[in-house]
Amino acid sequence: MDAWTALTERIDELDGIAGISSIIGWDEQTYMPPAAAETRGKQSALLSKLLHERSTAPEVGEWLAALSTQDLAEIPRAAVRRARRNYQRSTLLPSRLVGELAIARSEGFNAWVKAKGSNDFATFEAPLQRIIDLNREMASLLLPLQGPGAHPYDALLEEYDPGSTVKDLRPMFERLGKELNLLLDAVGGRPHPKGTVPPLDIEGQRKLSDRVLVDLGFDLNAGRMDLAAHPFTTDLGVGDVRLTTRLQVEDFMSTLGSTVHECGHGLYEQGLPKHLAGTGLNRAAGMGIHESQSRLWENFIGRSLPFFRYLQPRMAGIWPSLSLTPTDLYGAANRIERSLIRVAADEATYNLHIIARFELELGIFEGKLDAKDLPEAWDDAYRRIVGVVSPTARDGVLQDVHWSSGLFGYFPSYTIGNLYAASLGATLTTAIPDLWERVEHGDFAPILAWLREKIHSHGFTEDAPKIFAAAVGDRDPVKDLMDHLWSRQGVLYGVSR
Amino acid sequence: MDAWTALTERIDELDGIAGISSIIGWDEQTYMPPAAAETRGKQSALLSKLLHERSTAPEVGEWLAALSTQDLAEIPRAAVRRARRNYQRSTLLPSRLVGELAIARSEGFNAWVKAKGSNDFATFEAPLQRIIDLNREMASLLLPLQGPGAHPYDALLEEYDPGSTVKDLRPMFERLGKELNLLLDAVGGRPHPKGTVPPLDIEGQRKLSDRVLVDLGFDLNAGRMDLAAHPFTTDLGVGDVRLTTRLQVEDFMSTLGSTVHECGHGLYEQGLPKHLAGTGLNRAAGMGIHESQSRLWENFIGRSLPFFRYLQPRMAGIWPSLSLTPTDLYGAANRIERSLIRVAADEATYNLHIIARFELELGIFEGKLDAKDLPEAWDDAYRRIVGVVSPTARDGVLQDVHWSSGLFGYFPSYTIGNLYAASLGATLTTAIPDLWERVEHGDFAPILAWLREKIHSHGFTEDAPKIFAAAVGDRDPVKDLMDHLWSRQGVLYGVSR
Repeated sequence: MDAWTALTERIDELDGIAGISSIIGWDEQTYMPPAAAETRGKQSALLSKLLHERSTAPEVGEWLAALSTQDLAEIPRAAVRRARRNYQRSTLLPSRLVGELAIARSEGFNAWVKAKGSNDFATFEAPLQRIIDLNREMASLLLPLQGPGAHPYDALLEEYDPGSTVKDLRPMFERLGKELNLLLDAVGGRPHPKGTVPPLDIEGQRKLSDRVLVDLGFDLNAGRMDLAAHPFTTDLGVGDVRLTTRLQVEDFMSTLGSTVHECGHGLYEQGLPKHLAGTGLNRAAGMGIHESQSRLWENFIGRSLPFFRYLQPRMAGIWPSLSLTPTDLYGAANRIERSLIRVAADEATYNLHIIARFELELGIFEGKLDAKDLPEAWDDAYRRIVGVVSPTARDGVLQDVHWSSGLFGYFPSYTIGNLYAASLGATLTTAIPDLWERVEHGDFAPILAWLREKIHSHGFTEDAPKIFAAAVGDRDPVKDLMDHLWSRQGVLYGVSR
Repeated sequence: MDAWTALTERIDELDGIAGISSIIGWDEQTYMPPAAAETRGKQSALLSKLLHERSTAPEVGEWLAALSTQDLAEIPRAAVRRARRNYQRSTLLPSRLVGELAIARSEGFNAWVKAKGSNDFATFEAPLQRIIDLNREMASLLLPLQGPGAHPYDALLEEYDPGSTVKDLRPMFERLGKELNLLLDAVGGRPHPKGTVPPLDIEGQRKLSDRVLVDLGFDLNAGRMDLAAHPFTTDLGVGDVRLTTRLQVEDFMSTLGSTVHECGHGLYEQGLPKHLAGTGLNRAAGMGIHESQSRLWENFIGRSLPFFRYLQPRMAGIWPSLSLTPTDLYGAANRIERSLIRVAADEATYNLHIIARFELELGIFEGKLDAKDLPEAWDDAYRRIVGVVSPTARDGVLQDVHWSSGLFGYFPSYTIGNLYAASLGATLTTAIPDLWERVEHGDFAPILAWLREKIHSHGFTEDAPKIFAAAVGDRDPVKDLMDHLWSRQGVLYGVSR
């Protein structure tokens, strides 16, 4: 068997194991009975072990070496580049470190749950420091793969968002932080737009969610939607994309946002290039571009006035006694206000939460901050960047699960997604001149077709920044996001720059 | 690491992979979207490959060899015996044969679907012959493991029902066939017992099924029930037993039977000895004993008059306008009549369907019957044994999926289960003197406790016939089953021996 065939067969097998991991992970968060938790953890670890063994096996190195001397076409060349990076990554990390990280994450998560429950950072400090130390070690081992002049944090960004660098992100995030604060200062103290959605029954919300999903173009023959406490989207293999959403009687806008957001992720997964199976290029090009798809649908489309003109008659069909106009719904969906909790934050403030975390994570990986410094540094960053300070650790430095699970370098993806989404949205309004008329009539097909062509179909053939640049041309995402917010929330609150 | 530790760690790992296989198989039959079928097949095959590789690895042979010289306690000795049998089995079957069987089963299944659809055995003949040839080869390779004097079919029985032999089954089945025919002759032509259940809504049937499940003792903290076209029960790992049932508006008795039947399987799985994890003994002792648990609950308990006295008020709570007495329900649940289709057959006739298949399978593995002979042999066996002949191949030789999937030696389990269940039932009435009073009051705990002690907790520490004999003593299962049927259906139809 030649090296290329052998490599693609192995990648196909690794994709198979990853898909199986996703199936058991999906089940864990949807249907698994409580008593199965421990065993499921072991089953999951077993698959990780198999995945690691088969991706770092010496023969993989031999195939890659053989392929490095061959003159390859574009797709195989890209595939070999990705495979080499994965192989190097896996072989650079000693199994001692991988094992210690797994234990530290598990212990860290448990310590975080307890610390948050008792609103006491102190018991989380040592486990967090352990996770930080191991992540620093990992970052320094992986740094050589980032090329000369890279920032230590770049090695972590590469784990979630290949192609993103501190050099690019830092100035963008700084500018965005300032601009967002101007907007929030301007609307601060002004009355919220009118429009309040009363509690709505679960059955109706489920019905509407299903309807919206299909209207947006999600293929239920090749996927499905279930319920989960923390909504997520996962790809279980070709023809099987699983969305989850959360239905909240008291908070219809949150249900709607969750469904449309996850649908955006799902549409991306369903649009990935299936014909590239076995190359490793048939997958998402990172978390930021993934998030751009969910945020584009959730915010740019799903919180627009034309969208509520489409939705309102469907809501009236389910809840005949509901007397809300599209404008009421639009108002209810677009309130903004500085707030303490990231996951509950509005479209504008959300990014300030991320920018604060980005600054803290840079501090950690530049060696300026340790676990013991984080409570104070957190409050300081929140004061300067978000403009609010939590009176408790629970809603402050302990609010997110990410660090306890060893996820450093992940947070920026959310705002990268929002920035990409803003430029994609701005480009869409030019590419589809009657965009908002289409949305109002529930005709989302041209949007999906454009995203399929410009984003989804590229899979992982390029790093996300390149795919994005090719899709939108020479745009300024910070300006696009701010223009979007001023023209929407700015107008709703009656303020202008 | 000593051989015992190494072996138990490997068994634990193999159990992990088997559990993962069950998870993705459960999902396939409950929630998987249609477009995922091909990929799911590949994922399933990948796990089978991993399972085979790791169970036949040379080190397993070395551990077993090392352990064969050691003086082991009872549990390790039993574990090593099972592990050696599995290892010998896997290594006796060449991977060429395993691969050919997998292909023949897949092709056979597709050919069967088409042949049944077009009611034409001819197109199924060649694929079936291929499956038969490969199964004969498998049986002859495995026969030496059965010890001297074994029947070729014993090697197949061992796959599903370790400990069952042709020598034991043939006379029992022959006697049972004759006795059942006497009963069916006696009731033939007489009016059915009164009682007809009208169509009942799905939501109510679901509610009642959930209630019955909990009342019978199924632990929803360590399992759940979903819906499937072909109900089944599967163990996904410690603390995770999944039942499925089918809700039929027009056929409440079928819904009830399905739920109680699968609950019986589930209670067995939940009662297996968890502390024996890693020994391979923490599992079911075969299909026959498994079926004894489902049939005991479904038929002996679930079709009894006291059970309907328990159920009727619960039904009235859900469907207040329903005017059926416990006696009506009892009558509706216990109609018997010779019929063509195994899966729709009543409690008595069902066994005749199995006895006919057993005779045909013996003919195949004694070399007397080939695929081409089966349509005629089928009709002949049905005429003699079941007393009905199908006018079509679809409802005759093509009615079951089993042979197309290479399942030879599996059918007897169903009747073995019914026989075991009858003797267990007879023993229960002695062990729990107020059994039927308890049932009438919905107190099933003493039954479950007895089964836990006598059957479930033994897992696979012994072959099923030994576990069974220890539980019921020196009983005659054919007599017990016939006594049960005469005292129930005989009385309902007003006939006696």
